[in-house]
This record gives sequence, structure tokens and C-alpha cells, in this order.
Amino acid sequence: MGVNIDFEKEVAASEQTGYESGACSPRQMDEIQAEAGNPAPSRSVVTDLDRWIARKMLEVVGNPPVVLKLWDGAAVTPAIDIPVATLQYNTRSAMIKTILNPELYFGDLYSSGQVSFNGSLIKFMEIIYTNLEQSGRGSWLRKVVILLGHRRIANTHDKAKDNIYHHYDIGNEFYRLWLDTDEMQYTCAYFSYPEMTLEQAQVAKLHHVCRKLQLEPGDTVVEAGCGWGGLALFMAKHYGVRVTAYNISKEQVAYAHSRAEREGLSDRVEYVLDDYRNISGKFDKFVSVGMLEHVGKGDFPALGRVIDNCLKPEGKGLIHTIGRNLPAPMNGWIERRIFPGAYPPSLQEMMQIFEPNRLSILDVENLRLHYSKTLQHWLRRYEQNSDQVQSMMDEEFVRAWRLYLAGSISAFNVGELQLFQVVFARARNNQLPWSREHLYSPGQNKPEQAPVEAEA
Amino acid sequence: MGVNIDFEKEVAASEQTGYESGACSPRQMDEIQAEAGNPAPSRSVVTDLDRWIARKMLEVVGNPPVVLKLWDGAAVTPAIDIPVATLQYNTRSAMIKTILNPELYFGDLYSSGQVSFNGSLIKFMEIIYTNLEQSGRGSWLRKVVILLGHRRIANTHDKAKDNIYHHYDIGNEFYRLWLDTDEMQYTCAYFSYPEMTLEQAQVAKLHHVCRKLQLEPGDTVVEAGCGWGGLALFMAKHYGVRVTAYNISKEQVAYAHSRAEREGLSDRVEYVLDDYRNISGKFDKFVSVGMLEHVGKGDFPALGRVIDNCLKPEGKGLIHTIGRNLPAPMNGWIERRIFPGAYPPSLQEMMQIFEPNRLSILDVENLRLHYSKTLQHWLRRYEQNSDQVQSMMDEEFVRAWRLYLAGSISAFNVGELQLFQVVFARARNNQLPWSREHLYSPGQNKPEQAPVEAEA
Repeated sequence: MGVNIDFEKEVAASEQTGYESGACSPRQMDEIQAEAGNPAPSRSVVTDLDRWIARKMLEVVGNPPVVLKLWDGAAVTPAIDIPVATLQYNTRSAMIKTILNPELYFGDLYSSGQVSFNGSLIKFMEIIYTNLEQSGRGSWLRKVVILLGHRRIANTHDKAKDNIYHHYDIGNEFYRLWLDTDEMQYTCAYFSYPEMTLEQAQVAKLHHVCRKLQLEPGDTVVEAGCGWGGLALFMAKHYGVRVTAYNISKEQVAYAHSRAEREGLSDRVEYVLDDYRNISGKFDKFVSVGMLEHVGKGDFPALGRVIDNCLKPEGKGLIHTIGRNLPAPMNGWIERRIFPGAYPPSLQEMMQIFEPNRLSILDVENLRLHYSKTLQHWLRRYEQNSDQVQSMMDEEFVRAWRLYLAGSISAFNVGELQLFQVVFARARNNQLPWSREHLYSPGQNKPEQAPVEAEA
Repeated sequence: MGVNIDFEKEVAASEQTGYESGACSPRQMDEIQAEAGNPAPSRSVVTDLDRWIARKMLEVVGNPPVVLKLWDGAAVTPAIDIPVATLQYNTRSAMIKTILNPELYFGDLYSSGQVSFNGSLIKFMEIIYTNLEQSGRGSWLRKVVILLGHRRIANTHDKAKDNIYHHYDIGNEFYRLWLDTDEMQYTCAYFSYPEMTLEQAQVAKLHHVCRKLQLEPGDTVVEAGCGWGGLALFMAKHYGVRVTAYNISKEQVAYAHSRAEREGLSDRVEYVLDDYRNISGKFDKFVSVGMLEHVGKGDFPALGRVIDNCLKPEGKGLIHTIGRNLPAPMNGWIERRIFPGAYPPSLQEMMQIFEPNRLSILDVENLRLHYSKTLQHWLRRYEQNSDQVQSMMDEEFVRAWRLYLAGSISAFNVGELQLFQVVFARARNNQLPWSREHLYSPGQNKPEQAPVEAEA
């Protein structure tokens, strides 16, 4: 029943599918940069000082089994272990930038091809995480993967819109290339058993959420942050509920709306292009999957008040979110380049949503390794379609998203990130199940057999 | 699947079993007090001021359907509703004391018979909780049931011993009168289905805990706070593990030790008469059921360090504790008279155990209504044996524990108290089950069929 991440297999698979990342030669790099309008970097001579810096860089992260290659091809190799990856600095300035503000620059340097890479990015980052945990904080690579460069997050309504446009309005076509084909779920899937396909696991996730909410036919449901509308449609179709779903991404709402029309469900699912803070009305169920990461902890009390205002006395709610074991800011590069405004909270921080409103936590489940597996599926498909991504965007974009997806796998694998599903109700609500057995009813592992009847 | 507490049935049952509480006439009260060496109170004349105070007392708690009877038999009745209970003040000083420091004095006044009661104590307190929630804070009865009178809790090792002696060394014979006969579990049972007997539900609880810990034969387990040793023996007997169990109650450890001898398990279960802070060694599993309430939140970081020191890299842990939706001190009377040093934490507060050590929360389950049901079983048995309790202790003790048990039922029913089972592991532990389905395997509802094989 244990989960063993088979790294060798992972690396082998990645090599087959070509997701192996910055495996560009310096010549290729030059071409990319030339293409991007940059002159080919002058290959300055590697000095003793450069080599000393490179060795120090490896030392401070506990001498991982990684080769550091410099711009003249000279290599600083690990003392003992057989190297699992090669990190290549194609210019001196890239190396210096990494030391100056690793968290921000490493991502940009990798994306732009000034740093290239041979081996598994996932494995590389896991090793760094491990060594850093053992060697303590303060080193440049700890900063690469975890901390610093954090800017204060305050998601005003306008700011929230900007952030969401940045991420979700890249284009539905882009996400369609690598998300599950059926439900377009850009959140952690649920692998009731690990051999499930991504499509099966996303359907299993949707059922898992619906079962936790104990949806009953006729229930009114409000969804905060509905993505491409998959969950809302699923709930209406399979559990006979009416859904009002909020999202501030125009592209996503347009997509969701047309899908609801096409499936003849627009009388039971309403998509509202608005901020979750404007939710009004009273509902039997509140659900939010993958939105809390965008809320920012300063707005947790506001979210709590929204829930308190809209949840009926015997209602239930579920929040599904990326989280942490202890508070820390989002990696600065991801927060700047990929997910503006993102903040994965610790459970302690999440309690700011619930405790001031006396909401009762009924169930917390941590699906961390499910997110790693989900991301592995995504990355595999992403690499299979990277040519298309490149033609839609550019090479830098391809590399940035590769780093983001691979880095996220590492973070979930080593427990830097968590995935919490939190079920809650009002303190006085005694309409509670005696056990959670109903989540694991027969047929639960066969997501294609959707239970149309609700399960009270 | 919902749980409806049937109060009418509850009251009827309580009347049959005689748990109906202070149903003493003033004459009986006088006799009790005379018995206890107190002179019969002089029946001073009830004045207009007394009646005005009585009406005010009802007003500030939202005019509950309760009759307030004064020492001359005069009654202040509720305006509209049919009364569900009568609260009788047998002296003026009792009424005045209730106003002065309700939280502390109400319990003492009730225990000593200066306040008597007709009707269901449970229902009475639930009504008070409800009205107070609607009418806000600051009234005398809110203080009775919830707040104030709180003293700073700092459980030094010596203090912790005193506290535990106070509660657990009352005498095993006392607890044997009303706990389950098989396992002597003085913690929340687990009713996989609500019709279970108390004995079945306690065994189901033990299995539930063992399954959550994923015990495997040969595992080493450390238990912090082992009560009468039931869980430790159960784990060794049914799951083939070796247990080291800590407890600072001499009576409990002596009982547990002799039971282990009797059952031929003393080679696999070691009981240590010592504080949890002195746990040493490395273990596969950490478990603590019903101890955290005695730890005090100031010592949560210390408990976290103990866990961090003793848990193996791929270990798992479980803490089972009474908790709250938001931080608040224990009711002062219970803390003084019944459970010295007790503090039920909110989840946010509990995170002080886990977050500083990067421990990962895997699962939280709230069993609040299971504790109400457990307490209902206990109270029924307690009342059936109240004569024996009285002969072992005295009438005041009988009444104090009645109030404590009945008040706890109310608190769990209305969501003032919660019961959390929290499963955790180290951040880097990837030996995690894909789903929680193994907790609900076939046969789980038949606790008599204990799975001797471990379920990895």
C-alpha cells in the first residue's frame, strides 16, 4: 500500500518522452538566444576564481551528485557520488546572478537557456531539497527552491483579476494540450489506485469531492473558483444539484458556459464572472477546489465571512488547496513568472478561515503524493506536446513551464508542498455521517459508473 | 446517515434509568446538607428584589423555557414556552453566588445541593448554549457553561502528577462502575454504526486507531498516556506489535501491569510510570489517546519535540483529543473540581505540536457526536450505579460527576467541544496509503472479528 516513487523509472520515462529538459548544447543555446534577438554571449575565459565559486556553490548545498559545467566546458564534479545530472552555466553572468538572487534568477536563467541541464530536473531538485534539509538554511540553492524574493501579497479585486488573467487566460488551447481530456481539471487528481489513468483519476477526484460534500438531489451549491467549469457540470449531471459557480477568468467562464450549453445543463449550472468575495445568497454546500492558493492569507478572514454568510445552517463545505507543513512564502520565481499572487498556506494559517466563524473541521485529507502523480501525468503530456507549445508561445515559455511542472513534482515528492482537502460545517450542525465509509463505497474505484443517486 | 439527537427519548430514557439529576425536594436537600454536617439553611423571606434578580437572570440568557424556583417555592416562569426544566435555588446566597462567579459556583452549588434541578440537565444546558450563542456573550450563564474563572495552566512534571492523581487515582473501582467492561476505555468510542453497544464501540475505536496507524507485526509503538493500558494490550494482542506505554497515574499503571501479566503479554507490553516528556528511544509508531487534554498548550512545543525525537523516519503517529472550534479555556469548574490542568485545544493551537517539526498532517477526523454517544452510555451506567458511587464517595461527589458527564454531553451535542483524531508523519515519509479505504475494510463493523494480521 506504500507509495514508492521509482526515480529510475521516472527518469527513463522522461527520456523516452523527451521531457528531459535543457539538454541543449551551448551551440543550441546560442542559437536560441540569437533567435530571441540576443547576441551570442562572448565566451570569456574561465578563471581560477570562477572554478572556486563553482566548487563553493556545490559545497554549500552539501555536495550533491551533480556536475557543474562552466561556459568553457570545464566541469566541477562531485567528490564521491556518481553524478545524476549536469547543470551547465553558459555565461559567467548567469553563475553570478544565481548567487545574487537565486530564487528569482535561476528560473529565468533556465527559461532563457543561459543555464542548461542534463538529467532529471525532478531528481535534481529532490536531491537539493534533501541536502538543504540536512545542511540547514541560508545557502544559495535553498533560496532557489524555497524562500526569499517574496513580495507582499495583497490581492485587491483588480489585482486578483490581473493575477488570474496572467495564469488562466494564457489560452484554453494551451492547457488542453496536457490536462485530462474529459474534465479539464487543473487541480490534483485522486488516484484511488495508482494505476488509474489521468482521466479516471480526475473523475475519481470529482466523485471524492461530491461524496465528501454529501450532495443530495436538489441541493444548491456555490463554487468559488470554478476553473473550466468541470466540477460544477459534474455535480449537476451526476448528483442532481444546482450550482452557482464563480470565476474571474473570462476565458475559463466563456469555455465553461459554452460547455454547459452544449451539454444542456445551463438551466442547472450558472457561471458568474465575478470575484468570490461577491458571492451572495444561501446555499446547502460550499465548494472551492484549487482557488485558495490564489486568495492570499490576508484574505482568509474575508473568505471565512463569505462562507459564514452563504452557508445554510445544515450546510457543508469543502476547500481543496495546495498547502504546506509550516508557513513559508511561495517560491518567488513561480510567484512572479507563473502564478502571481499565489500562497499555499499551512493548516494553522487555514484555520483563520474557520475559527473566527466557529466553523467545525470534520475531515482533513492530505493528498500530497496524488499531486505528484497528477503532475507526472501532466509533465509527460506537456513534453509530448512541447513542439505545439513552442509554436503557440516560444522556447522560453516551454522551458519556464517545464521547470515549474518538474519543480512542483519535486516539491510534492519531498513534502515541501501538501494537498489538503478540508471538509467543514457549522458548529451546531448535527447532520453528520457516523463514519467516512460512504466515501469508499463499492464502485468507488470504478469512476465510469457514476452514482446518479445521491448518497446521504 | 445524519445523526439526530432525540432529546425526548433521551429524557425519557434518563427518567427510566434514574439519571435525572437534582430531582431532590428542598426537604431532601436539607437532609443531604444535614448529612454532610451542614445545618438546614434558614428559609429567609423572598423579597421583590429576589424575584427581580431571578427574572433578570432568565432574561440575560434569552428567556429559556426554564422555571427558576426560589427558596420559598415561588417560581419565575418563562414568558411563552412550556418549561422543560426547573432550576431551584434553595438559598438566597446560592442565587447571589451564581451571579458573582457562575462558572465556578454553579457546579459547586449544584454538587452540594444548594441548587437543585428537575428535568434533563443535558437539555437544559443545550438550551442555554443555544440562547447564549444568539444573545451574545457576557451573561452569567454563558460564564457558567463556557468561559472565565480560568487559571493559567502550566503543567510542571510535579503539577502534572498532582492533576492526574486528582482525576485518575480516584479509584479503578469507581471507573469500573460505568466504563465499558472489556477495555476500560475512558476516551471517546467509535460507533461505526450507532446501534453498537459501548463495548463494541470501544473495540471499534481501538481498531480504528490501529488501522490509522497502519500497525504491522513487529512494529515498535510508544504510547503517551496509556490509561488502564487497554490500547497497548490490544495492539500487542491483535496487531503483533511491541508497546512501551507511559502514564503518570500509579493506580492505572498498576492495573495495566497486572492485566498484562494475567494475559501473558508482559513480554510485549511495557508500562512505564513516567511523564511523556521522558520518552526515550526510537519507535515506528507514536500514539496518544486522550492525553493531550492534560498537556496544556504551553507544552505543545515540548510534545512536538518528544515526537520528533522518538519517531523513526518512516514512522506514523496519531493523537486523539478533545478539542474546540476556536480557542477557549476549559470551563473553570470542571478544570478545578474534575479535571485539573485540562485544556482542549483548537486545531490551530494543535499545529504548534506539528509545524515547528515539519510534521505532515495526513488525516484529521472529527468524532464529536461519537463522544456525545459515549458519554450517554457512561451517564446511563453511572446513574444505574449511583448508589454504589455514593457509598464509595458521597452525595456531593455523585452530583458533581453527574453534572460533569451531563454537561459534557451537551457540549459535544452543540459543538462547543470536538473530538479530533489527527494522523501525522514526517514530511519526507512517502510510505503513505493511496486511500483511506483500508480503514473501512469488510469486517470493520464486526469488531469481534479482530484482524490478527496487520494490514499494510
